[in-house]
Amino acid sequence: MQSSAAALEIACGASVDESTIDALFDELFPICRSITGPGLRRSLAIFERYMPLEIEGVPSGSQVFDWTAPPEWRIRSARLTGPDGSVVADLEESSLSVINYSAPVDAWLTLAELREHLHALPSLPTAIPYVTSYYQRRWGFCLPYDRLRALPEGAYHARIDSEFVPGAVEFGQCVLPGESEAEIVLSSYLCHPSLANNELSGPLALLAVYDRLSRWPRRRFTYRFILNPETIGSLCYLSRYGDHLRQTMAGGLVLTCLGGPSEKLSYQLTRRGNTLLDRVMEDIASEGVIPLEIRAFDPTDGSDERQYCSPGFNLPMGQIARTVYGRYPEYHTSLDNKEFMDIAAVARSASSIEHILKRAEISWTYRNLAPYGEPQLGKRDLFPSLNSPDTRRHSSDHLSDERQFLKRSMMILNYSDGESSMIDIAARCGCAVGDLEPVLEKLEQVGLVAIEQGRSNG
Amino acid sequence: MQSSAAALEIACGASVDESTIDALFDELFPICRSITGPGLRRSLAIFERYMPLEIEGVPSGSQVFDWTAPPEWRIRSARLTGPDGSVVADLEESSLSVINYSAPVDAWLTLAELREHLHALPSLPTAIPYVTSYYQRRWGFCLPYDRLRALPEGAYHARIDSEFVPGAVEFGQCVLPGESEAEIVLSSYLCHPSLANNELSGPLALLAVYDRLSRWPRRRFTYRFILNPETIGSLCYLSRYGDHLRQTMAGGLVLTCLGGPSEKLSYQLTRRGNTLLDRVMEDIASEGVIPLEIRAFDPTDGSDERQYCSPGFNLPMGQIARTVYGRYPEYHTSLDNKEFMDIAAVARSASSIEHILKRAEISWTYRNLAPYGEPQLGKRDLFPSLNSPDTRRHSSDHLSDERQFLKRSMMILNYSDGESSMIDIAARCGCAVGDLEPVLEKLEQVGLVAIEQGRSNG
Amino acid sequence: MQSSAAALEIACGASVDESTIDALFDELFPICRSITGPGLRRSLAIFERYMPLEIEGVPSGSQVFDWTAPPEWRIRSARLTGPDGSVVADLEESSLSVINYSAPVDAWLTLAELREHLHALPSLPTAIPYVTSYYQRRWGFCLPYDRLRALPEGAYHARIDSEFVPGAVEFGQCVLPGESEAEIVLSSYLCHPSLANNELSGPLALLAVYDRLSRWPRRRFTYRFILNPETIGSLCYLSRYGDHLRQTMAGGLVLTCLGGPSEKLSYQLTRRGNTLLDRVMEDIASEGVIPLEIRAFDPTDGSDERQYCSPGFNLPMGQIARTVYGRYPEYHTSLDNKEFMDIAAVARSASSIEHILKRAEISWTYRNLAPYGEPQLGKRDLFPSLNSPDTRRHSSDHLSDERQFLKRSMMILNYSDGESSMIDIAARCGCAVGDLEPVLEKLEQVGLVAIEQGRSNG
Repeated sequence: MQSSAAALEIACGASVDESTIDALFDELFPICRSITGPGLRRSLAIFERYMPLEIEGVPSGSQVFDWTAPPEWRIRSARLTGPDGSVVADLEESSLSVINYSAPVDAWLTLAELREHLHALPSLPTAIPYVTSYYQRRWGFCLPYDRLRALPEGAYHARIDSEFVPGAVEFGQCVLPGESEAEIVLSSYLCHPSLANNELSGPLALLAVYDRLSRWPRRRFTYRFILNPETIGSLCYLSRYGDHLRQTMAGGLVLTCLGGPSEKLSYQLTRRGNTLLDRVMEDIASEGVIPLEIRAFDPTDGSDERQYCSPGFNLPMGQIARTVYGRYPEYHTSLDNKEFMDIAAVARSASSIEHILKRAEISWTYRNLAPYGEPQLGKRDLFPSLNSPDTRRHSSDHLSDERQFLKRSMMILNYSDGESSMIDIAARCGCAVGDLEPVLEKLEQVGLVAIEQGRSNG
Repeated sequence: MQSSAAALEIACGASVDESTIDALFDELFPICRSITGPGLRRSLAIFERYMPLEIEGVPSGSQVFDWTAPPEWRIRSARLTGPDGSVVADLEESSLSVINYSAPVDAWLTLAELREHLHALPSLPTAIPYVTSYYQRRWGFCLPYDRLRALPEGAYHARIDSEFVPGAVEFGQCVLPGESEAEIVLSSYLCHPSLANNELSGPLALLAVYDRLSRWPRRRFTYRFILNPETIGSLCYLSRYGDHLRQTMAGGLVLTCLGGPSEKLSYQLTRRGNTLLDRVMEDIASEGVIPLEIRAFDPTDGSDERQYCSPGFNLPMGQIARTVYGRYPEYHTSLDNKEFMDIAAVARSASSIEHILKRAEISWTYRNLAPYGEPQLGKRDLFPSLNSPDTRRHSSDHLSDERQFLKRSMMILNYSDGESSMIDIAARCGCAVGDLEPVLEKLEQVGLVAIEQGRSNG
Repeated sequence: MQSSAAALEIACGASVDESTIDALFDELFPICRSITGPGLRRSLAIFERYMPLEIEGVPSGSQVFDWTAPPEWRIRSARLTGPDGSVVADLEESSLSVINYSAPVDAWLTLAELREHLHALPSLPTAIPYVTSYYQRRWGFCLPYDRLRALPEGAYHARIDSEFVPGAVEFGQCVLPGESEAEIVLSSYLCHPSLANNELSGPLALLAVYDRLSRWPRRRFTYRFILNPETIGSLCYLSRYGDHLRQTMAGGLVLTCLGGPSEKLSYQLTRRGNTLLDRVMEDIASEGVIPLEIRAFDPTDGSDERQYCSPGFNLPMGQIARTVYGRYPEYHTSLDNKEFMDIAAVARSASSIEHILKRAEISWTYRNLAPYGEPQLGKRDLFPSLNSPDTRRHSSDHLSDERQFLKRSMMILNYSDGESSMIDIAARCGCAVGDLEPVLEKLEQVGLVAIEQGRSNG
């Protein structure tokens, strides 16, 4: 799989800059996506232009852990017409106008009969709410509360042309291979129709990160990118690739809500709370260069990390967001749109995630390849061949650069025992992980240390 | 063994209320018990009326770890007569009047010759002390110091009609089976003659607890009840059942000194210090509903937990007391009698122990039976089938009851991984274990969680 | 190996007192030692008079982990003559006058040509610095800076008569067997020519410790003594005995710089930081009887513990010093001589190390040999055969000596489970380890506890 991904990578060279993100947003926004069906399929195809996604699907009716893959939902039209023939709600106006996974209907109803099929938000009277009913058949329309309360008595015509057909829950993934088999997994979801921050910001940031990492030399981690419908999609993914991830996954991020107005990024710790990315994020948060808040893991709310971090898997999956779901009133309404979301914020999020991943690479566990006794540094020009009191004498306040490089080399070599990460070693050295980067690169280059191959303490 | 115990359980339906305890006390108190022999046998038979005890014995002379099971002691009479024919000490007056395990004697002695065979307490001049010499042959009488110092010179007749015969160290046990094989072990000792708080309070409280638990549905733990002579009896018990307990024991309590005047119960931690009951007791002590002090494990003093917590076994056995041995001057004297002890306190102790065990049941480790991904709560009516902003929106200060129930369900499911106890999960939820009980029961009922079968982290 | 060492031990009975150390110092000081060759061999032979060293060597050219054993260096003479025929530097004057491992030369040079071959210390203008170039061929002389800056222009005759021949890196060791296979390893280095504190203090203190321990009954640890050239010598040692040490080593000390003027001893923790000797040293430091500072493990500086504590071995090797290398300006110069060093301080160091090792013996892990239930102390006269309230009653402030002895016995027995050291048990008893010594000895004597045979938690 990796080799074919590498082959495809060459073919997909288009650069994903801010204007590309902007154009893709406009193309993707109007599509009536759901957890299955043509909207999802069209959306994945748009991403395939820029990433060598391999698409696969779990057929409707398959048992997926405690769940059953649902039938595919096809929606062709949905319109509610008032007594005077005026349009009250229409899929053409907004893909939010119909309950996602609505059953078909073609009926005349009184206003009283209709009410239980109408959804609106008194607290946001101009917004169309986003309502779903994936696993229980019902039909209904969503509309602004201002419009709802002005509806006159009379006969309404509700017509939804939808159907449920055997299909599949589809997802796509691609891999950027590195020299280590240890993997960093980046995942986002694609299933909400016409929502901006809490939908498109995630996949678009994922694409921009993919684009940046495809240009890296990648001498360390392998990177895996996943796009799936939320919840059922990640369950389907894990049913096929969970065992692989258990063997290889060193860390991961679910990307969600990355385009809102918040200045800070917000990281949710993994369930384990002490994995590579948890420690990297704490390190970065304490530096203050990237504004970053850190949240505890919360199995009662969130995105696909709830599946990755279920107790049977307990994978080291964190979650990164900017303006977090549930914290802004526009969430899950038609007001979560391009005005609310900022394309530039999505690009900025991608750039910060690239920075985080760079840091993760040098924060990981490395292994001393000559662990019995000290390696002979002299024969590699890393230790002075002439040992005199002059070369050793120094004030303890101020080490020469050479001497400091040597001391850091010796610290890295002694503690690269498969248990200590570079974050631990930096703490022992009293310096930042970044200060160790040139030393680590030199030691890698002369073949004395190598990145931990397995997933190790991640 | 468990099935026959279950059968017997049906036969033994008499309720053990406070007046029953009172009557049993009066019947048991005068008996001259020891670590073997007819007194112990008669006492066990009295308990058998209310509990389906299976009695067994380890024959005299058997090697029991580092010990040898002693011969059976039979005492028929013991009387010391003064120069004037008056009775100085007599088994008929008190079963404490003779050294327990006294050798036989029939001799005339001067007061000077007699002195080394007389035991009294200057600090409590009206009390008869309780003296034993199980493993070295000697004979002697115990009497109040006031009487001792008034003895005139002259010829004394010491006559003890006792014998040592091959017999057995006997103990009894019964089991109340639950749905899990994980066991809670409740043990008390029966070997002190005519002592109240430091003897009869323990077995009587054990019986009252047995009676209460026999009426429980017991969908969780199995309960094991043991009565044995102290030290050698628990060693004999462990020589036969120690391996079984190593496989199954989730927790246990030695019941001792439960009838004294102290208001607080006193719990001694297990040797490990972090087992189920240790944590339950700390939880209860911090709540303050049951007044409870917590003591450290002490291998240099105490009761049968010293054997259960020896390093070769290291079983999770705590100890529960009220007015603790060694802390009251009447301890091990004839003043530890019904006046000192309060039958109502024994009943209160049993009631508190029942409360503790109820708490232990819901504080234990449970296992999510669908641990891969989240279980589909919707199909079990535990999650709203319609997902709209309305059902999700809430102030973080005040969750609806339904939403809180859902959140607690998700916490229990995510953390029921075989490592976290319900105490841990309650701490994560910021609530009391009791608050999780209805949620846990619902999740058990729909088959999503079950009690940990093995002894797990107990 | 141990039996022959034991045999030899009988032959070597000479006592090593302060005057012996003094005489040996004078004999050893002038020798031009190096990491190989006749100087090292002669030095080892001098120690063999007092210790049954088994000498072995790793042949030149052998691969030793990441290193290659160097050829043997033979130096016969080295003299630099000035334009006026006066001697500028001469091996006869000081064995420091020539770069250790200098290549041969016989050439006339101008002062300018000569300069790069001359080494002096402006900061210590009267000192000859100690310079080595083991692994890169060069030649050169070392001289006082005062002499260097006074050199006139003219033609200099540099003549070094040295050669490199196939030989071996040699080291010596001997063992004082104890009853346990668990070993304490004491190591020092022998390779610096004509240096006092940072060379001879170590081997001389080692010898004095050997002498003291050879007179012990040694019912517990086995002691291993090693003398080797620094770094390459300990690498060679580990290449042959590293696996053995991994099986047996309970603790160890590298002895270095033990003769300087500092009042305190200075202990460097092992890499693990929590081994037997680490805890013993912390215990001793907190008592304050032996003035002692404790340093963190530092893989970037130090002596042979850097090899023992490399990540592949991670052996429990500490380091003990008095006036620590690098902390005094005379270090690695001709001023580190008998005037700087104090023979009495070496003897004092040896005496303190003996005290430390005595403490280590009783601080180690012991094992209860009757761990199932309590052992029957009564049959060993360790528990009163008569149990009466009198023998138990006591004020908690003041235990009788007998009762305290009994309580400490029971603590040792309960916690000697292979996990707790005597330091842990003393902490539980609220007493010093030394207070437990008589109890421990009694329990060893009656066969209830024995020293842990393997290296256990060391």
